[in-house]
Amino acid sequence: MTYKLYKKEYDYSYSLGVFPTIELLQNHPKTTEKVLLHPNGNENQGVRKIVEFCNQHGILVETNEKLVSKLSRKDNCYAIGIFSKQSMSLSNAENHIALVNPSDMGNLGTIIRTVVGFGITNIAIIRPAVDAYNPRVIRGSMGAFFKTNIQFFDNFQEYLDRYNNDIYTLRLNGLRPLNKLKLNVNRPYTIVFGNEGSGLGDDFDDIGTGIVIPHNEQIDSLNLAVAVGITVHHFTNCTI
Amino acid sequence: MTYKLYKKEYDYSYSLGVFPTIELLQNHPKTTEKVLLHPNGNENQGVRKIVEFCNQHGILVETNEKLVSKLSRKDNCYAIGIFSKQSMSLSNAENHIALVNPSDMGNLGTIIRTVVGFGITNIAIIRPAVDAYNPRVIRGSMGAFFKTNIQFFDNFQEYLDRYNNDIYTLRLNGLRPLNKLKLNVNRPYTIVFGNEGSGLGDDFDDIGTGIVIPHNEQIDSLNLAVAVGITVHHFTNCTI
Repeated sequence: MTYKLYKKEYDYSYSLGVFPTIELLQNHPKTTEKVLLHPNGNENQGVRKIVEFCNQHGILVETNEKLVSKLSRKDNCYAIGIFSKQSMSLSNAENHIALVNPSDMGNLGTIIRTVVGFGITNIAIIRPAVDAYNPRVIRGSMGAFFKTNIQFFDNFQEYLDRYNNDIYTLRLNGLRPLNKLKLNVNRPYTIVFGNEGSGLGDDFDDIGTGIVIPHNEQIDSLNLAVAVGITVHHFTNCTI
Repeated sequence: MTYKLYKKEYDYSYSLGVFPTIELLQNHPKTTEKVLLHPNGNENQGVRKIVEFCNQHGILVETNEKLVSKLSRKDNCYAIGIFSKQSMSLSNAENHIALVNPSDMGNLGTIIRTVVGFGITNIAIIRPAVDAYNPRVIRGSMGAFFKTNIQFFDNFQEYLDRYNNDIYTLRLNGLRPLNKLKLNVNRPYTIVFGNEGSGLGDDFDDIGTGIVIPHNEQIDSLNLAVAVGITVHHFTNCTI
């Protein structure tokens, strides 16, 4: 099989770099098809760890300078993991975040890294959305992508029909300031975030509890990844 | 004068786009040398606001399609403000943030936007650091750059010699979890953040109060802009 620069329609994707590839192997050894190495990384400790792991688990390793440079578009990428995309479901009875129409790959990676760090590993993505399997998202997540369940929905009603968590929506017109919010911690919750530019539309006005992060009028809004970090930190910081 | 693609050594810089240019004009009309417009933006409401403002304040406006496209490297940039760099000092008796060796322009812009939204407009930058005047930083800040005082220092001691705020340092080995932190709100404070990759070095161990944002071991660290957002939100959310 010949591997080409990633495209959304492929049924596989890549972890670019040593650290994300270790995360891929440790979390999804069975869906890892192969690992590609760059010869310059032979002395790298992480690369040695990768080779050892692959030998133990019977995963193919190929040293291929040209292909690694081509797929990573970088000179200093030492390892690439090739893995098949699997459809995933979210865990019932756990907390979720739902991202409605996320459109920025870097932001999505940062969001994944952030929520995993605060213990939320179930992520609903409402389409249209940026391709979460794009290697740039995975790299931006620093490999935290491989510790999550990500499930895609065509609209938010589809998500509501399937899961029964308490819903909190972050909105500029939310009535409940985040810092005054009291949670019912006995029930799993889902925090819903809108698109980077447009936020959540009016159709979310009657869904769940609308919350807001109070900030002054010197700025229009917070960056989405920053808003997710502040919100999820507030929701989880009593329970870590 | 012929204007060229921005370089760090120039004594002027650019606001790229309608929104950042309006922020430039409203906050620093006296240091604005000129505004360049793209003819395609003639019907744009923001552009009209710019032209009106410039006429009132005697600021030169030039329509120059070629130069706007060249300086912005984009096809859809309608306005560019050209402003001279001014050395700034931080306000005594106000809260500050200090960024030690920030290295990512996008992150720096997001950080500026975030802290301005929470009411902190005095930013110390400890060199070596990314060029805060780079148009990418200004754009990343959504123009909030123009609402700040930014002062540069060659090392942190130089900052300490000059300002007398209470110091809080965000560190992975900080002893005080952010969510348990009680502040003395009668004294101005400075929150210190390290570099994106390496954080604050050992030389900060004995400076001020070390704080930490508790997260699990599934990630190495939080993204810097997210960490700044969570921390500054916590410090300021009682006072907005």
